[in-house]
Amino acid sequence: MNKKVSVYRKEHFCAAHRLNNPSWSEEKNYAVFGKCNNPNYHGHNYEVEVKVTGEPAADTGFVIDLKYLSDLINETVIEKLDHKNLNLDVPEFLDTNPTAENIAMVIYDILRSKIDERMNLQVRLYETPRNFVEYPAS
Amino acid sequence: MNKKVSVYRKEHFCAAHRLNNPSWSEEKNYAVFGKCNNPNYHGHNYEVEVKVTGEPAADTGFVIDLKYLSDLINETVIEKLDHKNLNLDVPEFLDTNPTAENIAMVIYDILRSKIDERMNLQVRLYETPRNFVEYPAS
Amino acid sequence: MNKKVSVYRKEHFCAAHRLNNPSWSEEKNYAVFGKCNNPNYHGHNYEVEVKVTGEPAADTGFVIDLKYLSDLINETVIEKLDHKNLNLDVPEFLDTNPTAENIAMVIYDILRSKIDERMNLQVRLYETPRNFVEYPAS
Amino acid sequence: MNKKVSVYRKEHFCAAHRLNNPSWSEEKNYAVFGKCNNPNYHGHNYEVEVKVTGEPAADTGFVIDLKYLSDLINETVIEKLDHKNLNLDVPEFLDTNPTAENIAMVIYDILRSKIDERMNLQVRLYETPRNFVEYPAS
Amino acid sequence: MNKKVSVYRKEHFCAAHRLNNPSWSEEKNYAVFGKCNNPNYHGHNYEVEVKVTGEPAADTGFVIDLKYLSDLINETVIEKLDHKNLNLDVPEFLDTNPTAENIAMVIYDILRSKIDERMNLQVRLYETPRNFVEYPAS
Amino acid sequence: MNKKVSVYRKEHFCAAHRLNNPSWSEEKNYAVFGKCNNPNYHGHNYEVEVKVTGEPAADTGFVIDLKYLSDLINETVIEKLDHKNLNLDVPEFLDTNPTAENIAMVIYDILRSKIDERMNLQVRLYETPRNFVEYPAS
Repeated sequence: MNKKVSVYRKEHFCAAHRLNNPSWSEEKNYAVFGKCNNPNYHGHNYEVEVKVTGEPAADTGFVIDLKYLSDLINETVIEKLDHKNLNLDVPEFLDTNPTAENIAMVIYDILRSKIDERMNLQVRLYETPRNFVEYPAS
Repeated sequence: MNKKVSVYRKEHFCAAHRLNNPSWSEEKNYAVFGKCNNPNYHGHNYEVEVKVTGEPAADTGFVIDLKYLSDLINETVIEKLDHKNLNLDVPEFLDTNPTAENIAMVIYDILRSKIDERMNLQVRLYETPRNFVEYPAS
Repeated sequence: MNKKVSVYRKEHFCAAHRLNNPSWSEEKNYAVFGKCNNPNYHGHNYEVEVKVTGEPAADTGFVIDLKYLSDLINETVIEKLDHKNLNLDVPEFLDTNPTAENIAMVIYDILRSKIDERMNLQVRLYETPRNFVEYPAS
Repeated sequence: MNKKVSVYRKEHFCAAHRLNNPSWSEEKNYAVFGKCNNPNYHGHNYEVEVKVTGEPAADTGFVIDLKYLSDLINETVIEKLDHKNLNLDVPEFLDTNPTAENIAMVIYDILRSKIDERMNLQVRLYETPRNFVEYPAS
Repeated sequence: MNKKVSVYRKEHFCAAHRLNNPSWSEEKNYAVFGKCNNPNYHGHNYEVEVKVTGEPAADTGFVIDLKYLSDLINETVIEKLDHKNLNLDVPEFLDTNPTAENIAMVIYDILRSKIDERMNLQVRLYETPRNFVEYPAS
Repeated sequence: MNKKVSVYRKEHFCAAHRLNNPSWSEEKNYAVFGKCNNPNYHGHNYEVEVKVTGEPAADTGFVIDLKYLSDLINETVIEKLDHKNLNLDVPEFLDTNPTAENIAMVIYDILRSKIDERMNLQVRLYETPRNFVEYPAS
């Protein structure tokens, strides 16, 4: 029988960004991205919710120690993104548009290599309390 | 490999309603629906969370522009339901009981025809922060 | 020295209402109250936050037992307003417009007579998470 | 076509607990569980979110009456866990470590036998707003 | 007798900023402002809570129409700050450090001249859900 | 003119406690404190909101650096209370009942001596999202 449990840990960071496609004209960028294209950037308080799914270990009752997961997210994701300009300070976004979708995929890729591959991983990223994304889709 | 991302947009409306089955007696309606059957209506602040799943476009990094999705929900759903009496003012509920389940299904049907059919759609409706529903079930 | 502490208890109810001044024409009511004037009503999930200020008793460490305060609010306020149409079902609003301001004042008057007069009382009422009022003003 | 809807009801309880594996030494327990191993216990405000999935009944528009579901959770789960020491007062945890994972599984087992087996059931348990679990995993 | 009521309206904007004192060296700025001094900026989702205190009008039951207050905040404050770089795009911060304290004072000054002087005004600004300020202090 | 601003920082801890007056009989303790008197303890996720009021410094724009305030609360309050049994592990409650009122007063006393006396200080403590206290009363 399925005894898998999902565990979630939520962390936060704040960052500046702008949405822009460098292969387009200024006019097209503004037409598509509107205020989010401001060349001087704007920013958000992002919330990252990381979901890890597996069977709890018999001796601990943990799928994964949430203190360990919290430390892992902080060391590999939050350190990299917090109080940063995503477009200028984060190599992954030098040629990738930092939409919520792309930020979630970057965070997933960072964490996937650090977490036991027998466990499923999913990342939910809140850009605001009313705009958020999830990768991979379930 | 699956590169699908889900994106979510949350909007709100407030409305009056009552739960009632017109083919039942008053007594049976009160027995089944209790306070929610008040003939003078009561009401809620509803939150609608719309989830759209697809692959982000290469040139924008968007599954769907959340500004566009927000405008679409406002024009087709919020305009129709906000500050309304669901039983009296909204044709879809003239002979359908406006339970959270049925309201979510009505909202889904409105939005389904407006969103690219290659994208999955799901609607979560909060009647209160402690009572909510999701359609279709995942 | 001031050893006064304020204690707060939050309760909720949902209700229908409309804003209307019966001494005005329909046109004027609509011009002033807009969508809130819908003759068929709309509704909200209200949150009531009651603040009581006094010195904690030496033997209990309580200003007022929050379980007692919760029961008092439920018996005198929530029973009266929950799942009701404020305009039609609640005598206090038969000739008083059920704005958030007026609802807060009605709740204050109900509770003031039940709570030791040496304690200060204040009521905050949330009509939505973004619209709320406080009476008396501090 | 799939006409299944998921409905959710959220309830809360507060409890004390400690994480401990009695077959380990004190040192090992402290090394694995850290502050959560405090022999004098610590505690949380837990939130339980219960999800029930099925087809709405034609005559009510309900998958399951949320008032009934709320009462059921309160009578079978909240009464048992609220204001308790999970390790000492709750038989299920006499030899099971009360991690969030295990608490969610215990709550699931209690509710599963009370809810129509044609309906799917899932339990999400918040230990804090930033640490939570879901069983069974979806 | 005091019949004053306070009414609150909450709006939001997102913006980039950095904390910096141009009369200091880079080293001193970094020592004082730490990560908030990033020359490439970072950003936040700000929430602005505006409190207006006065007596409700007899004919409306309103201290101030919250729809009007919402429009006023949007037209004078949100338009000016939303999706902007506070340091570069907003004249008030060209020589004022955009700390939460200073942003709240700027917002207060904008609104004070637009609201009837017999009414008290107070602004609360959330930079994050855990960091916020209020001006003037009560 | 008053240029004072209040700044707030919110931190959290979780702890076990019980309410009990050792000079009373078991029966009286149970009659007064009910479930909160459980001899095996229960617990909460507490949120501490610290408010400091003063004039922003001209060179920084800060009333007090919120990073400094956060560190101060963590080092002096959270370290002392987090993952503890308040009755057994915290000397201040060996003969003081750990009601929310008394916990807030203890936190205030710890912080008062560490913060410039020209600044006003107030502590709000959430025991649950619906039960909270503030000291000193304003």
